[in-house]
Amino acid sequence: MALSSRRKWLNEVIFGTDTPAGKNFDVFLIWAILISVGLVLLVSVEGVAGRYGEVLFLLEWIFTGLFTVEYLLRIYCAVNRRSYIFSFYGIVDLLAILPSYLALLYTGASYLLVIRLLRVLRIFRVLKLVRYLRDANVLLRSLGLARRKILVFYASVLVLCVIFGAFMFLVEGPKHGFSSIPKSVYWAIVTITTVGYGDISPETPLGQAIAAMTMLIGYSIIAVPTGIVTAELASELGREKALHRCDNCSRAGHDKDAEYCKFCGYKLAELEELR
Amino acid sequence: MALSSRRKWLNEVIFGTDTPAGKNFDVFLIWAILISVGLVLLVSVEGVAGRYGEVLFLLEWIFTGLFTVEYLLRIYCAVNRRSYIFSFYGIVDLLAILPSYLALLYTGASYLLVIRLLRVLRIFRVLKLVRYLRDANVLLRSLGLARRKILVFYASVLVLCVIFGAFMFLVEGPKHGFSSIPKSVYWAIVTITTVGYGDISPETPLGQAIAAMTMLIGYSIIAVPTGIVTAELASELGREKALHRCDNCSRAGHDKDAEYCKFCGYKLAELEELR
Amino acid sequence: MALSSRRKWLNEVIFGTDTPAGKNFDVFLIWAILISVGLVLLVSVEGVAGRYGEVLFLLEWIFTGLFTVEYLLRIYCAVNRRSYIFSFYGIVDLLAILPSYLALLYTGASYLLVIRLLRVLRIFRVLKLVRYLRDANVLLRSLGLARRKILVFYASVLVLCVIFGAFMFLVEGPKHGFSSIPKSVYWAIVTITTVGYGDISPETPLGQAIAAMTMLIGYSIIAVPTGIVTAELASELGREKALHRCDNCSRAGHDKDAEYCKFCGYKLAELEELR
Amino acid sequence: MALSSRRKWLNEVIFGTDTPAGKNFDVFLIWAILISVGLVLLVSVEGVAGRYGEVLFLLEWIFTGLFTVEYLLRIYCAVNRRSYIFSFYGIVDLLAILPSYLALLYTGASYLLVIRLLRVLRIFRVLKLVRYLRDANVLLRSLGLARRKILVFYASVLVLCVIFGAFMFLVEGPKHGFSSIPKSVYWAIVTITTVGYGDISPETPLGQAIAAMTMLIGYSIIAVPTGIVTAELASELGREKALHRCDNCSRAGHDKDAEYCKFCGYKLAELEELR
Repeated sequence: MALSSRRKWLNEVIFGTDTPAGKNFDVFLIWAILISVGLVLLVSVEGVAGRYGEVLFLLEWIFTGLFTVEYLLRIYCAVNRRSYIFSFYGIVDLLAILPSYLALLYTGASYLLVIRLLRVLRIFRVLKLVRYLRDANVLLRSLGLARRKILVFYASVLVLCVIFGAFMFLVEGPKHGFSSIPKSVYWAIVTITTVGYGDISPETPLGQAIAAMTMLIGYSIIAVPTGIVTAELASELGREKALHRCDNCSRAGHDKDAEYCKFCGYKLAELEELR
Repeated sequence: MALSSRRKWLNEVIFGTDTPAGKNFDVFLIWAILISVGLVLLVSVEGVAGRYGEVLFLLEWIFTGLFTVEYLLRIYCAVNRRSYIFSFYGIVDLLAILPSYLALLYTGASYLLVIRLLRVLRIFRVLKLVRYLRDANVLLRSLGLARRKILVFYASVLVLCVIFGAFMFLVEGPKHGFSSIPKSVYWAIVTITTVGYGDISPETPLGQAIAAMTMLIGYSIIAVPTGIVTAELASELGREKALHRCDNCSRAGHDKDAEYCKFCGYKLAELEELR
Repeated sequence: MALSSRRKWLNEVIFGTDTPAGKNFDVFLIWAILISVGLVLLVSVEGVAGRYGEVLFLLEWIFTGLFTVEYLLRIYCAVNRRSYIFSFYGIVDLLAILPSYLALLYTGASYLLVIRLLRVLRIFRVLKLVRYLRDANVLLRSLGLARRKILVFYASVLVLCVIFGAFMFLVEGPKHGFSSIPKSVYWAIVTITTVGYGDISPETPLGQAIAAMTMLIGYSIIAVPTGIVTAELASELGREKALHRCDNCSRAGHDKDAEYCKFCGYKLAELEELR
Repeated sequence: MALSSRRKWLNEVIFGTDTPAGKNFDVFLIWAILISVGLVLLVSVEGVAGRYGEVLFLLEWIFTGLFTVEYLLRIYCAVNRRSYIFSFYGIVDLLAILPSYLALLYTGASYLLVIRLLRVLRIFRVLKLVRYLRDANVLLRSLGLARRKILVFYASVLVLCVIFGAFMFLVEGPKHGFSSIPKSVYWAIVTITTVGYGDISPETPLGQAIAAMTMLIGYSIIAVPTGIVTAELASELGREKALHRCDNCSRAGHDKDAEYCKFCGYKLAELEELR
């Protein structure tokens, strides 16, 4: 699809990161996002909201206006508008400005809290940051490969937590804070992940014995996702390095600093920086 | 052993997962299990049990009936009945329906709590889920290979916990919550697994020094099971990925740098990039 | 040094684990150790000590007598007596019986607690268990190889804890539980190891910010010992497998299930079970 | 640059670690640093400061004098003075003595606390320790290689903590301790790192559900830095162990299965078993 020259230029600046203008735009955007998130955080602090309420309100609207203009320009200059709007980032971009406008329509005091809940979603805008960071790709690819294994792992952990939670509900009972099975499952998750708030903790000897068992199981379970991710990540890193290929025997797996093929002794071609 | 055609068909549906009917049956079963477990959880919440007690009671009996029929059909159509009944899943299937019937026989109010304890075992039914998930095999095989090493590890952790617990009992004493050695061992497990509830915590300087030592030891110990599982899992994954297949005996599992089939000695074809 | 036939036989039974008698002796000893440790734990529970005090006292003396005889026999039948007595296990064997005798000499009520402290050392006897478990060797060798790296790691963690502790002492001060730098260092260790009792926790915004930083640093530090142990363990496991050597080209690194050398295609010798 | 013989000798003793004198100087320095840090810790303990205040004051000044002389000598004998003074260790050396002198100039009671804050920086002196430990290099190089990936990881964790913190602020609110978004972010960090003090903990069912999700996410996230460091460390260790050395160019770092030197293409000698 051929774009008008203005749309093409805007597309390069807003979506691209190769031209200086595109890069500067992205850097500026990141700072604007970080500052606007900082403002949301500040507003929530009681003393600050009382004293600087008006300034913060004004600043918030300036940022909302800025991001609205940016959102409209993105739609205008996107190569495929529909696919941008319904893409993950398109939706995040919309959600990042919506809460402010919703606060205008429904000004009832009782709704304020709900609107704030939506406003918090603005923080998702920060997720855009990831787009600009290279190494995230290696991490995400590793996690993607380990996806199914991690799902199986989560299912097992949840099953364990429900079973242990139910046991603890019966052993300790509402007297010691285990007031229902769902709450006991919450306790089991707090325990098996080794967080251990201590807001609910077993008090009978039998309960403490079961809790100790839960911890020891959680302790060895923690090794499983680490093992999965490490194994995938190691092979991913290995892959990255394994692109170095001999022109003579065409076998790969040479170190980055290798100059000669380790299998046939042939001089290796100059290795351009791989990542 | 030849089965009647009806038993054969039932066996395919109930035990098998290859035919569409068998797959649908399994999916239906998983949902029934998840919903019935959800009901057990709901019943334990005080407010819910009071208001919807009768509906929940009825639903529970519908599920119990359903699972009872399923259990009897499984026995009926199993290829080897005895081996099914005494297999792990056969026992779990029985335990998943037993508590409801036990609640009928012993209706004494004082026994109710005990019956509930058995009823909780119904949750084990969820364990069937694992049967349907493929990747669990890789995880389980890795854990199986690491079994003996993990046992040695647990023994060492327990010995450490008993020693540290005894020391803390002497140093801190019942005054600060360390009322007996078993309870101090419980504290040591809570600490060494980095859960740290804070229900019992050292208050004397010497006790805090020993506690700090316990933590640092637990901190480096956490590395051991991770190391074990990762090493086993990496070799397991390596095997999985080694799609390098011999043209002669068509067996896979060769190293990337292998030149000859390790099973039949046949020269391997050049390895194209695998993924 | 030639031993009398009786000493030789005793040596085989007590120190050896190859003959049936030697194996039975060791199994019996492990059970006796576990039971006697269990008694020490029971005595510490208030209610139990009051009711069964006399029985427990008697049983303790039976075990003490048993272990005394065993200790004397070990000295009698050791190939090199001096080296046994001053070996790690020789000293542990002595410490495991000494506390009971010390309780006889000094019967003053005020000394009782101190004597108990020594009695607790009896638990070290359990450490003998490790001697009988094979896989512990792989673990210990891995830890041994990683020894120096782990030491460097501990030094760094302690330095970090002292620095963070001192900062928190200044920021939070005695008002919020950080009553001295050593106690703040204790807090830093509790935090950096992710134990988090909550007995001391920051209350000022600045303190909470520093605490958050401490946690995030501790969070990434936890990766270091795991990385060390995993790397060593993986190479140790690799080594175990790498004993499979080709008779023709004498190159190792074949899988356990390999039948032909992957480098020259020569039939590999039958692999005896390696461990 | 040619140095006078006295400066050269001092340089060898103070900066060098190869001569016996240089080694002894470094060992002496480490002890002096450890003891002076111990004194700072002691001073902060209330009882000790009251009773031994004068002795501790004197000792502190002796150490300050010692380190001042050392600092001046270092400047005197450094090969390149400017580069020493502005190096990391040069600045640490200065910061380690400055607080004591600052305490002299500003003796106002109200400044005392600030001066102490600077005094704490003296502890950084311990960081010098790292200089003397060999294996730290392997660890630091691994962390250096993983630097960018770890940064991406931290950014993601912080984004997650801000989002979860904001949600919890809305769900739980100031009533249950979540008094502002920054404080809720502090809670999220405490939770996601599995520290779990319990000073702030969710009390509503919805809040506990979100908290449980936060923990499970934190639980699998903990695997990522471990995976990164392990992968880098394993390749680093692999390099270290590859003692496979070329007879022609005498450079090491070849893979175990290498046949030709990867640097000069010379045929490598058969690799004898390395350890």
